[in-house]
Amino acid sequence: MKQFNLLVLVGFFLSFSALSQSDKYSFPIPNKKQLAWQEAELGVVFHYDLHVFDGKKYGQGGNRIDPVPNYQIFNPKELDTDQWVRSAKAAGVKFAILTATHETGFALFQSEVNPYCLKAVNWRNGKGDVVKDFVESCRKYDVKPGIYVGIRWNSFYGVHNFQVNGEGSFRENRQKWYKEMCEGMLTEICTKYGELFEIWFDGGADHPDNGAPDVLPIVQKYQPNCVFYHNLQLAETRWGGSESGTVPYPCWATFPNPYSHGGDTEKERMKLLKQGDPDGKYWMPAMSDAPLRGFNGRHEWFWEPGDEAHIFPVEALMNMYYNSVGHNSTLIMGLTPDANGLMPAPDVQRLKEWGDEIKRRFLNPIATTSGEGNKLEIKLSQKQLVNHIIIQEDIKNGERIRKYEIQAWLKGRWKTIGDGECVGQKRIQKFDAITTNKIRLLVSESVETPQIKNLSLYHIKE
Amino acid sequence: MKQFNLLVLVGFFLSFSALSQSDKYSFPIPNKKQLAWQEAELGVVFHYDLHVFDGKKYGQGGNRIDPVPNYQIFNPKELDTDQWVRSAKAAGVKFAILTATHETGFALFQSEVNPYCLKAVNWRNGKGDVVKDFVESCRKYDVKPGIYVGIRWNSFYGVHNFQVNGEGSFRENRQKWYKEMCEGMLTEICTKYGELFEIWFDGGADHPDNGAPDVLPIVQKYQPNCVFYHNLQLAETRWGGSESGTVPYPCWATFPNPYSHGGDTEKERMKLLKQGDPDGKYWMPAMSDAPLRGFNGRHEWFWEPGDEAHIFPVEALMNMYYNSVGHNSTLIMGLTPDANGLMPAPDVQRLKEWGDEIKRRFLNPIATTSGEGNKLEIKLSQKQLVNHIIIQEDIKNGERIRKYEIQAWLKGRWKTIGDGECVGQKRIQKFDAITTNKIRLLVSESVETPQIKNLSLYHIKE
Repeated sequence: MKQFNLLVLVGFFLSFSALSQSDKYSFPIPNKKQLAWQEAELGVVFHYDLHVFDGKKYGQGGNRIDPVPNYQIFNPKELDTDQWVRSAKAAGVKFAILTATHETGFALFQSEVNPYCLKAVNWRNGKGDVVKDFVESCRKYDVKPGIYVGIRWNSFYGVHNFQVNGEGSFRENRQKWYKEMCEGMLTEICTKYGELFEIWFDGGADHPDNGAPDVLPIVQKYQPNCVFYHNLQLAETRWGGSESGTVPYPCWATFPNPYSHGGDTEKERMKLLKQGDPDGKYWMPAMSDAPLRGFNGRHEWFWEPGDEAHIFPVEALMNMYYNSVGHNSTLIMGLTPDANGLMPAPDVQRLKEWGDEIKRRFLNPIATTSGEGNKLEIKLSQKQLVNHIIIQEDIKNGERIRKYEIQAWLKGRWKTIGDGECVGQKRIQKFDAITTNKIRLLVSESVETPQIKNLSLYHIKE
Repeated sequence: MKQFNLLVLVGFFLSFSALSQSDKYSFPIPNKKQLAWQEAELGVVFHYDLHVFDGKKYGQGGNRIDPVPNYQIFNPKELDTDQWVRSAKAAGVKFAILTATHETGFALFQSEVNPYCLKAVNWRNGKGDVVKDFVESCRKYDVKPGIYVGIRWNSFYGVHNFQVNGEGSFRENRQKWYKEMCEGMLTEICTKYGELFEIWFDGGADHPDNGAPDVLPIVQKYQPNCVFYHNLQLAETRWGGSESGTVPYPCWATFPNPYSHGGDTEKERMKLLKQGDPDGKYWMPAMSDAPLRGFNGRHEWFWEPGDEAHIFPVEALMNMYYNSVGHNSTLIMGLTPDANGLMPAPDVQRLKEWGDEIKRRFLNPIATTSGEGNKLEIKLSQKQLVNHIIIQEDIKNGERIRKYEIQAWLKGRWKTIGDGECVGQKRIQKFDAITTNKIRLLVSESVETPQIKNLSLYHIKE
């Protein structure tokens, strides 16, 4: 079976590689979807599911094997997706994702193939459609909408790690039904709500050869501009290996396989997810993700009462930002509206504070330049304090830089004040403040000519 | 476990026996619900489920383990339950039953606890309620409405013979959920549609001690006037042991257990279902059932195209009537509306023909009498042809007759023209026509004084 899968994957690569990989260079480049996703830098994912309403602590393990006793608890009386999206927009996000289905299996839209959906509840007389509201709010506020779909776990239908629980032809029949139901739901998601920015399969989707829903052709057919993440055939982005909202440095956007796993051991697998592979033949940038309510001993993707004290402070969020966006990774922050249907006031406030702080720090550089080649210099009209540099490659032509130094003109000579390997979409480099009127980027190793679309200097008071 | 169940059943008997069993006599008598059910004599059960719409042959085995691929096929554009009930009424039925859920698990009403219901379909914009329509039509035409509930099989939820398919706590959790879902559905059925005549659990309901839905208290609480059929605790009627629409003779309304199984072997079990036990301590009259489309090599409870030739002819239906109603058993005829939502014209016509024939034969007796004692005589003003006798005990006081003869005054002396054991609600006795002016019933064995509420003579041309 493994051998067969490999052949399928090779075949797949041969047919689809032209869509996403360069044949112009010896190294991969992003497709336009990946490029947009990386340039967005910051997004959110709204987690919303039945158990938000049960007043109990969320237990993921139990949730996966224990159906919610009464789905009529879904009753967000003041649901206002405009308010959700505004709260995210205030943080500066460019895209937002909603869990159309999570592990309970309950679908937050009007499905014609999955009865366990908003048609079943009394809320809005069975006519509510949170996906529709959400997408419309996103468009209203110019935030790109994406959808998160959970098909790996489904306590309602009795699906555990993709497999319908049971035996014999009984199991096989229900597995087939589940496969078709999932394909049907995905088709609905892909056809009823306009263009989507990302489809995110929760915990991935299995390979169709294993009897799993054949999701890739559906997304490719109906949402050609949508980032696909992910199944055993393809990942257009990868999980950055933790839910800490950070990736280590360096973190390359390239990967050895078209699907987001690799390495012979768990350790190697995690290292690959976190750091990528500069020699990888596939473009697959890393996502950093974390729940906003993940501070000080909690890590909650779903709203629960009494978690307000666990909202990350701005300083922690900025630290994440440096270690995700600043490490060439797109950061997706987990938000969760409350049982009333609104983003809680403390979360709203924190998101605004965070967005304000990002703007305060990075909106106004001291100086900016761009250019091609191994050396790029910024001259200031007068000496200034500098303590941050942002470097951005023009990644539409790949990650070309492999080794670089940053030098400042100090006391009549160039002094190295920082160095690194990966730049990619964005490298934020922080150092003790210096006073200088010249700073330069020296690339000592690269593939092809480095293309720097942005080199900016900042003096940021923290 | 068996021992424990027995104790529970004994306890159950002690608490509930007063409701349904006599302490006035040494033999049981019906409760008022059973009495009404027996006096009704003739009913129908409408079978309607998703697969009526799939254009394929119904396969019960496959149906139980294979979910219907697309439930949106449910689209009876011209559904008219008035027409259904009129078609049944034309046959002379006093009650009608509808399969609110059958083996697919799909619920023909607006359930708030089972998403797999009419809320899920596009038909009538997800607001259709066939149970409601059906009950209202019944009341309009003065036919008593009953509901048939299938919880033993459910291919949608993966339930086979009461058991959720699967393993470990995963299975246990879903079993618990299913139990509560079934109890919730039953509560909806018992509380939303007014007084019901009968609740019929398809293939029975398991015992709550086995983790099964605890259905009996729900029916007793919300539908105190409704015949309960049946679970491992109680059957107020019993299946007559075949789907031939007949029971053998004699067929007693009494049974050795409060639940409708008994006997040490399958043969004994079937014999008990078919014939009952004259010494049984529990009143549990027998149901005869058959699908109207059960003639000449077919036996179809559900509508399928091309089955019109298999509608029983009137003669066969009359034969069933003699061998069910005429054998002290209530006959329930299976009807099935088509995919368009109507009773097909040939079925409608046959039901009317059947009802007309029953009336033609039995509406106008030559003479009628009633009375108490071991001897009851009818004297005619002049000699007449007689070829049928109907005898009815006043069963509210039990089945008292154990052995009887019918004698006619022929050529100056009493001649026995028929005999029997059980009378009960109705005994139709047919014999070669005789010409006489006196007929008498002689009871040779009985418990307490026989109470004959009707002794009628007929001359019927067949």
